[in-house]
Amino acid sequence: MNRLIPSRAQVERHLPILQWSKTYNRATLTSDGVAAIIVTIMLIPQSLAYALLAGLPAQMGLYASILPLVAYAIFGTSRALAVGPVAVVSLMTAAAVGNMALQGTAEYALAAVTLAFMSGVILLVMGVFRLGFLANFLSHPVIAGFITASGVLIATSQLKHIFGIEAQGHNLIQLLSSLVGHLAQTNIITLVIGVATVVFLFWVRKGLKPALLATGMAPRLADILAKAGPVGAVVVTTLAVWLFNLDEAGVKIVGAVPSGLPPLTVPSFDPDIWSQLFVAALLISVIGFVESVSVAQTLAAKKRQRIVPDQELVGLGASNIAAALSGGYPVTGGFARSVVNFDAGAETPAAGAFTAIGIALAALLLTPLLFFLPKATLAATIIVAVMSLVDFSILTKTWAYSKVDFAAVFATIFLTLISGVEVGVSTGVALSILLFLYKTSRPHIAEVGLVPGTQHFRNIKRHTVETHPDVLAIRIDESLYFANARFLEDYIYDRVVCDQPIKHVVLMCSAVNEIDMSALESLEEINHRLNGMGIALHLSEVKGPVMDKLARSPFLKELTGQVFLSQYDAAVALTPKTAADGTA
Amino acid sequence: MNRLIPSRAQVERHLPILQWSKTYNRATLTSDGVAAIIVTIMLIPQSLAYALLAGLPAQMGLYASILPLVAYAIFGTSRALAVGPVAVVSLMTAAAVGNMALQGTAEYALAAVTLAFMSGVILLVMGVFRLGFLANFLSHPVIAGFITASGVLIATSQLKHIFGIEAQGHNLIQLLSSLVGHLAQTNIITLVIGVATVVFLFWVRKGLKPALLATGMAPRLADILAKAGPVGAVVVTTLAVWLFNLDEAGVKIVGAVPSGLPPLTVPSFDPDIWSQLFVAALLISVIGFVESVSVAQTLAAKKRQRIVPDQELVGLGASNIAAALSGGYPVTGGFARSVVNFDAGAETPAAGAFTAIGIALAALLLTPLLFFLPKATLAATIIVAVMSLVDFSILTKTWAYSKVDFAAVFATIFLTLISGVEVGVSTGVALSILLFLYKTSRPHIAEVGLVPGTQHFRNIKRHTVETHPDVLAIRIDESLYFANARFLEDYIYDRVVCDQPIKHVVLMCSAVNEIDMSALESLEEINHRLNGMGIALHLSEVKGPVMDKLARSPFLKELTGQVFLSQYDAAVALTPKTAADGTA
Repeated sequence: MNRLIPSRAQVERHLPILQWSKTYNRATLTSDGVAAIIVTIMLIPQSLAYALLAGLPAQMGLYASILPLVAYAIFGTSRALAVGPVAVVSLMTAAAVGNMALQGTAEYALAAVTLAFMSGVILLVMGVFRLGFLANFLSHPVIAGFITASGVLIATSQLKHIFGIEAQGHNLIQLLSSLVGHLAQTNIITLVIGVATVVFLFWVRKGLKPALLATGMAPRLADILAKAGPVGAVVVTTLAVWLFNLDEAGVKIVGAVPSGLPPLTVPSFDPDIWSQLFVAALLISVIGFVESVSVAQTLAAKKRQRIVPDQELVGLGASNIAAALSGGYPVTGGFARSVVNFDAGAETPAAGAFTAIGIALAALLLTPLLFFLPKATLAATIIVAVMSLVDFSILTKTWAYSKVDFAAVFATIFLTLISGVEVGVSTGVALSILLFLYKTSRPHIAEVGLVPGTQHFRNIKRHTVETHPDVLAIRIDESLYFANARFLEDYIYDRVVCDQPIKHVVLMCSAVNEIDMSALESLEEINHRLNGMGIALHLSEVKGPVMDKLARSPFLKELTGQVFLSQYDAAVALTPKTAADGTA
Repeated sequence: MNRLIPSRAQVERHLPILQWSKTYNRATLTSDGVAAIIVTIMLIPQSLAYALLAGLPAQMGLYASILPLVAYAIFGTSRALAVGPVAVVSLMTAAAVGNMALQGTAEYALAAVTLAFMSGVILLVMGVFRLGFLANFLSHPVIAGFITASGVLIATSQLKHIFGIEAQGHNLIQLLSSLVGHLAQTNIITLVIGVATVVFLFWVRKGLKPALLATGMAPRLADILAKAGPVGAVVVTTLAVWLFNLDEAGVKIVGAVPSGLPPLTVPSFDPDIWSQLFVAALLISVIGFVESVSVAQTLAAKKRQRIVPDQELVGLGASNIAAALSGGYPVTGGFARSVVNFDAGAETPAAGAFTAIGIALAALLLTPLLFFLPKATLAATIIVAVMSLVDFSILTKTWAYSKVDFAAVFATIFLTLISGVEVGVSTGVALSILLFLYKTSRPHIAEVGLVPGTQHFRNIKRHTVETHPDVLAIRIDESLYFANARFLEDYIYDRVVCDQPIKHVVLMCSAVNEIDMSALESLEEINHRLNGMGIALHLSEVKGPVMDKLARSPFLKELTGQVFLSQYDAAVALTPKTAADGTA
């Protein structure tokens, strides 16, 4: 019975809302409400812009910012994370879905919805089976390189809207050559709107808040006004197009955006579509998760709160499934908006639910006002937002710190720019794993000898030590496993072939934390081959758990030599005159 | 000048023939000659059989046993390795080429020739760039599982010839259901020939030599006769078919085998074919190399000779290119025939060249005699040969020794049988790498305290030690890299959130051999977050090379705490009363 009915603590672990709702009061409500208003103002233009970046109708960006936020508020563990469409995931969505259908078609939108659903299922499964550790296989520099390259790709992809021309491509070369090819068709009015908005938004970022503070405005209000800068740009440029009929002069506008709450949508269950989207869904899930958890942990740390990564998988999974069922596309926790949410004083995930209400009101009431919104304005919003992601200093940092990491980052950036997001990030991950295996596949091995007058053994290359021509004593400074098993085989073998008097080989295992089956077979092979040469193999200083494992195999029985507790015992037994008292 | 004209030693390193030919004399000639005769007798039926297993005309097996042996004799470093078509590589060839063309067509043979060429190029490139270490990423149990499953697949694929029926398939289920479906068409005479040959060959393996020795025959002669068993079966069954016109009774025969020396063939350079065959060529190269080197090393060890793995890649690469240019298909060093070659007294690679002459004579003179050779006889040869590869004990061995290794072996065997050779071995390799990363991604971390009256620090769970509520001291028993960086972050973070009085965290790095860029960024993040909580981060006992690397990054400057030479220094500085004399 006890096991069938879950305890309240168990339920709360999987439904974090039950924990924080217990202490919810008027003060937290006020804090959450204010934060929600600020995030809503920031999120409206971003949602529209990222949907267009993903190649989707603008309203899908709004839809993706409603129910997913509510789902995260129920299942997520971060008190400040703001979920929704983000730049990199939008780019990855465009790349994945663009391979399958033409932009603007119903198939394209259906594929995006399906991608969100698959990504949600993958995240949920990872959460339930506690597979969050898989995200650890993405090395930090590879992610940093990938985000930087994605930022460059995204900014480049938006230039066509700034120039008011057509251009296409999934990599930098295609994009640039397409841009250059169409440059003659530049629409000057669009270019003026676009460039002015970019300049304005950069100024809002850096200069607006200090300027407002200088006028004696209260810091809180100055902060809110600075965050509202993009909305100001949207209002001003929309009015300009409407008043001066700029759309008739060739300025591309967003056009009719259906108003209303999100529709109920059903993802595709066609196995063909699933198999085509699977790799993309996996990459979107893992990269979205890694980014989101890292933001959530940084913010939680500031208040000594706690994030449960496996529960975060469930929260993000639920958000993506909610997105799929309500006309959205893949979402995750965004960096900039989460920081804004935190700074604005959000105390609980309820702030996210309130933001959802704000966006829902926008979807109901504001969409008719977006008709004359120039696409150039949205493109400018994206460009300014992603420029903060671009940081090539990871190249110089890794170059200074570790050439192996540099190689992985460089390959990731180069391939993401040249071959697209999926190839770039997959290669980066594979390369960092291979380079790690390569490093551990050549462990440090030292020949050791006795430090005179002691019982200690040290590297013969660094210390003056006593050795005996009959005995080769080797210390291995690494666990033994398949990638370095053969290295040890070759090392010992080369060593004894060159040095004929050797009669005993002693492996000093003080630094060997683990011997896997491949390494065990290598040891058996070494034992067997040395036996063929008339040489005995001994072990010394084997750790307890390793010895327990060896005892379960026939190796110890077949061993031609002995297992010594210490290297000194081995020396005493194999070279009788070592013993201080001269006996034996 | 010095660098442009290679020294004689450099040339000899890349052309091992120049080394051993210097001491070649009448005695080595005799030894090599005798070994060559025995290996030739063994190789003729095997070559024909393996070519049929690969779905190729029988003569291609003979062609693959001529020039490749000469190429290996020039470039290879093993003195006993016998190169040629082998069972597992023949099966992999059939799987790869069978996806592209119908058996018996010119395209099929061309694809096999191309596969040999690609495999040769891959091996050569690996040899020139010294990439032999890549083979280390194949764990021993995965290879053992793969060979066992391949043996089962091969034996099953030959049953159709024993029953004289049609059957097809690239996995066990397809093969068995196809066999059962056609069982009604069994040809009784074929079945009798097949079963009798299998029984005879098993008896030859186990019982013939003792029986001959019992008659007082000289051991050497008994040995040769035992090796000639398969040839005996070939002669007797061929005569039986010819004398009793059994082919007219439905016994399938080899038929016309063109006689003559190998033709000059040119591989395809169609990029489409290359991209289709690439993965197969890579797997064939790596698996062939691993098997071949392991045989070569075992045999060389018995005479304290030396194998150079990177030069072996060149030798095998040259052999495969020779196979591709002379109508053969992928080859590698075979286990059984190399042991026979060694036991028969081969002293130098010249034995291989003499074997090539023997096979060439067979191709010139013997092929007309093979017309009436029943396919059932060749199938029986294969079945008996591969049964020695099948060894399911790897499952029980790994189960007893390590569940992680068991999982990798089981997946390899299961998937090879169910989904075919390429899926099976690729999954096994990927799984063993992932499981290894998983193990190292959760390093052992111990909280440590001071052993009273000493300067030593030990795990608080295992020893009675002194701790201080202000200070959390942690020892990490593993190098820090991307796969465990987040684990450390989570561990420290969880620990300090639950334990509010902590003011100092000390990381004791005595077992940290390496900190990669991801781990460095994790440390920066930990430092940053702890700072946000008012906690200082300190390091102790950092190794020299690690400290050098850290000094090249801004981390040490940003560190909120200090770097202590020893954990004891840290304790003295952070908890003043620790100091024995009570000062400070």
